[in-house]
Amino acid sequence: MKKMIIASTSTVHGSSYLEYLLPTLQLHFKGVKQIVFIPYARPSGITYDGYTAIVKKAFSNINIDVKGIHEFDNAKEAIGTSEAIFTGGGNTFELVNQLYKNDILSILKEVIAKGTPYLGTSAGSNICGVNMKNTNDMPIVYPPSFTTLGCIPFNINAHYLDPIEGSTHMGETRETRIKEFHVFNETAVLGLREGSWLEVNNDDIFLRGKLTARLFEQNKQPIELKSGGLIKF
Amino acid sequence: MKKMIIASTSTVHGSSYLEYLLPTLQLHFKGVKQIVFIPYARPSGITYDGYTAIVKKAFSNINIDVKGIHEFDNAKEAIGTSEAIFTGGGNTFELVNQLYKNDILSILKEVIAKGTPYLGTSAGSNICGVNMKNTNDMPIVYPPSFTTLGCIPFNINAHYLDPIEGSTHMGETRETRIKEFHVFNETAVLGLREGSWLEVNNDDIFLRGKLTARLFEQNKQPIELKSGGLIKF
Repeated sequence: MKKMIIASTSTVHGSSYLEYLLPTLQLHFKGVKQIVFIPYARPSGITYDGYTAIVKKAFSNINIDVKGIHEFDNAKEAIGTSEAIFTGGGNTFELVNQLYKNDILSILKEVIAKGTPYLGTSAGSNICGVNMKNTNDMPIVYPPSFTTLGCIPFNINAHYLDPIEGSTHMGETRETRIKEFHVFNETAVLGLREGSWLEVNNDDIFLRGKLTARLFEQNKQPIELKSGGLIKF
Repeated sequence: MKKMIIASTSTVHGSSYLEYLLPTLQLHFKGVKQIVFIPYARPSGITYDGYTAIVKKAFSNINIDVKGIHEFDNAKEAIGTSEAIFTGGGNTFELVNQLYKNDILSILKEVIAKGTPYLGTSAGSNICGVNMKNTNDMPIVYPPSFTTLGCIPFNINAHYLDPIEGSTHMGETRETRIKEFHVFNETAVLGLREGSWLEVNNDDIFLRGKLTARLFEQNKQPIELKSGGLIKF
């Protein structure tokens, strides 16, 4: 009964926060009056209140109310009784750290499995995978574990970037980093470019948006998946 | 008595492995016959033997022999009795993971403090700081801790990159990531551009190479440090 939108980014260049996704979200959250928002990833260290205000404004365009999880007395209960959930982007290490500290990973997984509509963007999408080992974020805090929700049977690399032709920078490309991951891990990784998202209908996972996505499997050449198609491997 | 070279990168664009540093290393390792090499960071998952062979070839240009730490029966003893040490670049998470697994962090710190000449490049430089929380690497393995050598009183951001003007990518810039770090941490961070290195003479730390470096302190505007100068703050 899973019903999820797992997006590479909240914002595409040249448009406002969540703007490109709003038509999709209107259908995804049909009938929902209030979304519980998880602001733990705190991009640029913004406060939970500040972050929630931005999300509230975006969802007011489709007449849905938003309440931050920090505004509830009991975070677990807030998730357990929520109509719908949105986890925003920011730093994946701090997000996962707070999910553990607030002990809400299992209840989150449980309600998603039962059909509570979920939206994740960027860090909020990374946590839908098996673990957070393919985040691009800086490890600014040390979470108790890298294990995440496992709502999908692979990992996400959000904001996937193709190698920049002619670059003289010697840092690793994204593809090199994911190949290094596969020296130590078996889990497949989907490189989701900005503007792409996954639509999860129970166990069917579709690629949406205009772009292809790059699938990396251990000991295989990476392949490009077409938008609109079911993701199978 | 510390004597360290802490370099942003092993290789600058258009030249061979360690080439730009060789004149410096010839002086730094004067009188040294054999360097113990720590290949744990394994860039692109290369084997310890393969990595050591590359390093051996580079140092043969200045007539110094290289032996991988994995070729010794006892890693701790190898560090304890070494004439000089080089930790190469690659994945900082796996490097730190192996430093803990092989239990050589304290002996490494000890011999560096006593004056054993040390060279670090990239990941091998990140570990000289207080912790590894400013690495750019992907968290492909979960190390037991992010705490590192603390041979210098600040952290390194290797391969420091300035924001790319006109970029439409929505991922965070390096500066934004370091600012996020300072929401949760007090440790200063030095952004070392490729081609820059630090020369540590006991407690004096000099910036070397042609470029400036960018110093980030909590609650302060970042500043550019000039090459040749002592690093003080």
